Amino acid sequence: RADGARLWATILETAAFGGTPAGGINRLTLSAEDGQVRDWFREACEAAGLTVSVDALGTQYALRPGRDMARKPIAFGSHLDTQPTGGKFDGVLGVLAGLEVMRSLNDAGIETEAPLLVVNWTNEEGSRFAPAMMASAAYAGDFTTDEILAKRDAADTTVAEALDAIGYRGVEAVGTREIGAFVELHIEQGPILEAEGKTIGVVEGGQGIMWFDGVITGFESHAGTTPMPRRRDALLALSEFALAAERIALAHAPSAVATIGEAAILAPSRNVVPGRVAFTVDVRDPRSATLDAMEAALVEAAAEIAGRRRLEIALTRIWRKEPVPFDPAIVAAIDAAAESLGHARRRIISGAGHDACNLAAKVPAAMIFVPCKDGISHNEAESATQADCAAGADVLLQTVLRLANA
Amino acid sequence: RADGARLWATILETAAFGGTPAGGINRLTLSAEDGQVRDWFREACEAAGLTVSVDALGTQYALRPGRDMARKPIAFGSHLDTQPTGGKFDGVLGVLAGLEVMRSLNDAGIETEAPLLVVNWTNEEGSRFAPAMMASAAYAGDFTTDEILAKRDAADTTVAEALDAIGYRGVEAVGTREIGAFVELHIEQGPILEAEGKTIGVVEGGQGIMWFDGVITGFESHAGTTPMPRRRDALLALSEFALAAERIALAHAPSAVATIGEAAILAPSRNVVPGRVAFTVDVRDPRSATLDAMEAALVEAAAEIAGRRRLEIALTRIWRKEPVPFDPAIVAAIDAAAESLGHARRRIISGAGHDACNLAAKVPAAMIFVPCKDGISHNEAESATQADCAAGADVLLQTVLRLANA
Ligand SMILES: NC(=O)NCCC(=O)O
Ligand SMILES: NC(=O)NCCC(=O)O
Repeated sequence: RADGARLWATILETAAFGGTPAGGINRLTLSAEDGQVRDWFREACEAAGLTVSVDALGTQYALRPGRDMARKPIAFGSHLDTQPTGGKFDGVLGVLAGLEVMRSLNDAGIETEAPLLVVNWTNEEGSRFAPAMMASAAYAGDFTTDEILAKRDAADTTVAEALDAIGYRGVEAVGTREIGAFVELHIEQGPILEAEGKTIGVVEGGQGIMWFDGVITGFESHAGTTPMPRRRDALLALSEFALAAERIALAHAPSAVATIGEAAILAPSRNVVPGRVAFTVDVRDPRSATLDAMEAALVEAAAEIAGRRRLEIALTRIWRKEPVPFDPAIVAAIDAAAESLGHARRRIISGAGHDACNLAAKVPAAMIFVPCKDGISHNEAESATQADCAAGADVLLQTVLRLANA
Repeated sequence: RADGARLWATILETAAFGGTPAGGINRLTLSAEDGQVRDWFREACEAAGLTVSVDALGTQYALRPGRDMARKPIAFGSHLDTQPTGGKFDGVLGVLAGLEVMRSLNDAGIETEAPLLVVNWTNEEGSRFAPAMMASAAYAGDFTTDEILAKRDAADTTVAEALDAIGYRGVEAVGTREIGAFVELHIEQGPILEAEGKTIGVVEGGQGIMWFDGVITGFESHAGTTPMPRRRDALLALSEFALAAERIALAHAPSAVATIGEAAILAPSRNVVPGRVAFTVDVRDPRSATLDAMEAALVEAAAEIAGRRRLEIALTRIWRKEPVPFDPAIVAAIDAAAESLGHARRRIISGAGHDACNLAAKVPAAMIFVPCKDGISHNEAESATQADCAAGADVLLQTVLRLANA
C-alpha cells in the first residue's frame, strides 16, 4: 500500500507553486511557477534514488531500476501544469502518486522485474499553448518536435523560448525513451463516480476532441449613429454562433459537448460596434461520426450567420484527436488491482483528454480515476478526499506491480 | 470665408499623431499621442496670437480678444482624442476648424465685438475613461473635478495620473471659464446628409445615452467533462443578453440603438467553460421615455437569463445623459449662416454624444454637421471631403461672426 498521508502532504506542499488565494493553482505550462514545481519534483525523485532526465520538450522522466534491465520500464505519471483557474488535483495527483509508488517500494525494499518510470509530461492543459497534451502527442509521433517548439502563446512566445526561459529544454530526443506500458491515475473531473458511490473508475478509453480557432470580421461603427439594421456586429454574430454550438451539442445529448472558452473583441470600446472577434471552440464526443456531424453543423451555422449578418466567419480546425480505446490487458490489470484492494469500482470513459490517450497509440495504456467533489475541475474549487487519493495510489501501485512482475 | 486648403493641411498634419497604417488614428485621451497633438495645438494657437490656458481636467482654451472685453467669449471647438479605431475627422474637424476661424480672421484683419475662444475638451470619446464627454460634463457641473480625477482606465490608471503623465493638469478651476455661447462643428457620423445630398446639418439636439457595466458570474468547469445541462456558462448568458439587447433596440425602431462594445472573459482558456464575463452596454434614443422602457426591458431580460441559466447577472447604470434640445437662437444663427453661404441644409438630431450637449445645460449651444462617407465613424475608414470640411468651417466662421457681433 502507498502512504496516503505522505502523498497528501506532497499535494499540499506543491500546491504552493502558483497557489491562488481561492485555494486553487494558476501554474501555466513553462511558467516560472511550473519551473519551480519541476525543480521540486526533480529533487524529490533524486532523493528517492531515481535517475531523472528531461527530453527536448521538457518532459521529465525519473527511472527506478528493475531486476531485468532488458525489459522496457512500466511507466506512470501525468502532468504538473494547471489551468489559469486550476485546482490542486488535475494532473498533480497522477505525478505525485507516481512518486509515492516509488517511495513506498523503497520503504518496503521491493524490487520489480521491469524498471519503473514516473513521467511529468509538458503542457497537458493546452491553455497556454495549443493543442493540449502536446508533449505526449509528440512522443507518440502526432507532431514533430520542431512543430511543437514553434507553437506560440497569446504573447507570441514560442514553446522553445518558454522552455529555455525556465531551463527545461532537455537533450533527450522526444519519443526515444523506452516505455513498456503506461498507467495514469487522475481525478475523474466529472460527476459519475461520486454520484454512484464508487471509489475507482477503470477507464476504458477517452472521447474524441476537436479544437477550432475562429475569427469573425464585421465592421466597426459608431454605437450612437449606426442604425441597428446597418450594423455588421461581430459580437452579435459570435453570440448566435455560441448558442448554435450549444444547440448542436444538445442535439447529440447526452454525450456531446461544445464550448467557446476564449472570445475577445479586437480594440474594444464602449461606443464602438465590435468589428472583429477572435474565439475558440472545443467539441467532444466518444464517437468519431458524431464529431464529423458536429463539425458539419458548426460550419453550416457559421455560414448561415455570416450570410444573414453580412460578415465573415472563418473557422479553422487546429486539432482533432480521435476517440481512444485503452489496452484491454492494462484495463484488466487495473480492474484486478482495484478488486484485490476491495474498492467499489466501475468502467468509465474519460471526458477529458489525457496524456495516456496519446500514449495509447504507441504503447499499451489505460487509466485509473478517483472521484472529485461535484465533478468540478478546471476551477479553483476542485476538490478530492485524502482517502480517495490514497485509494487511487494503492490501485496504481498494485497495477504497476502486476505489470512489472508479469 | 475660411481657408479650406489650410484647414485640410492641418487635418492631415495632426493625423500623424497616433496615425495607423490603415489611415485612421489611435489617439486615446491623455495618451502620449494625445500629449503630442495638444502640444501642436498650443503652439499653433500661440503662433496665431491666442492666449492658451489649461484647466484642472486638461481642457485647452485659446482666447482671441474682442473689442468689448466685458462680453463673454463666443466659444467653439470639439476634441482631439480618438477611439482606438478612430478616424481623422471625429472631433478633430471641430477643433482645427476653430483654429482656422481664428487664422482667417487674423488674415482678414477682422476684430469682433465679443472675444472668441477655441476649446479642445479632454476625453470626449469615453473609450479610455467613462463617461464620454467627461470634461465638458464637469464644466457643466454634472460631476465634480475630484470625481473625474478619480476615474480609472482598464489599466487602473486614474485621470489625475494620466493628466500628470503628459503634463496637462492645468491650474484653472473647471467651470470657471466664462463662455457666452458654444458652437461645435462635427462630422455627422451617420448616413443622412450624404443620402439626401445636403452639405450642412443644422443640429437641433442630441439623443439620450445610457451606459451600463455588466458582470455575469457563472461557474468555471471542464469543457470535456461537464455535461451541457450542468453548465453555468457566462459566455452563453452574455450571448443571450446581447441578442436580447438587439431585439429590445429593434422593438423601438428606427430610432433606438443598443450596443455591447466591450466583453471579456476572465481567465479565458480553450477547455474551460467561461465562469465570469465583464461587459458594457450603450443604449440610446432621442426620447427619455424610450430610455426608461429599454432599461426596464434589459433588466428583465438579464433576470430571466440569470434565472434560467442559474447564474448572476449584475447590471449597473454608470451614466445617463438625457436627450438635449439645443438653443433655438444659436440654431437659427447656424441656419442663417448656412443659407447666406448657399449650402443645401437640413435640421437633424445627433445620434452621437458631443461636448455641445453638455455645454447646452449651462450656455446657449448648438452644432453644425457635415457629411461623412457612408455614415462611417469610430472606424479607421472614416472619411469626409475637403469641400465639405471647408463648407463647415465657413458656416462656423459666419455663425461665430453673427454671434460675436450681435
Ligand atoms: N485532464 C485535463 O483536464 N486535460 C486537459 C485537456 C482537456 O481539455 O481535456
Ligand atoms: N462624437 C462622438 O463620437 N462622441 C463619442 C461619444 C459617443 O459615444 O457618442
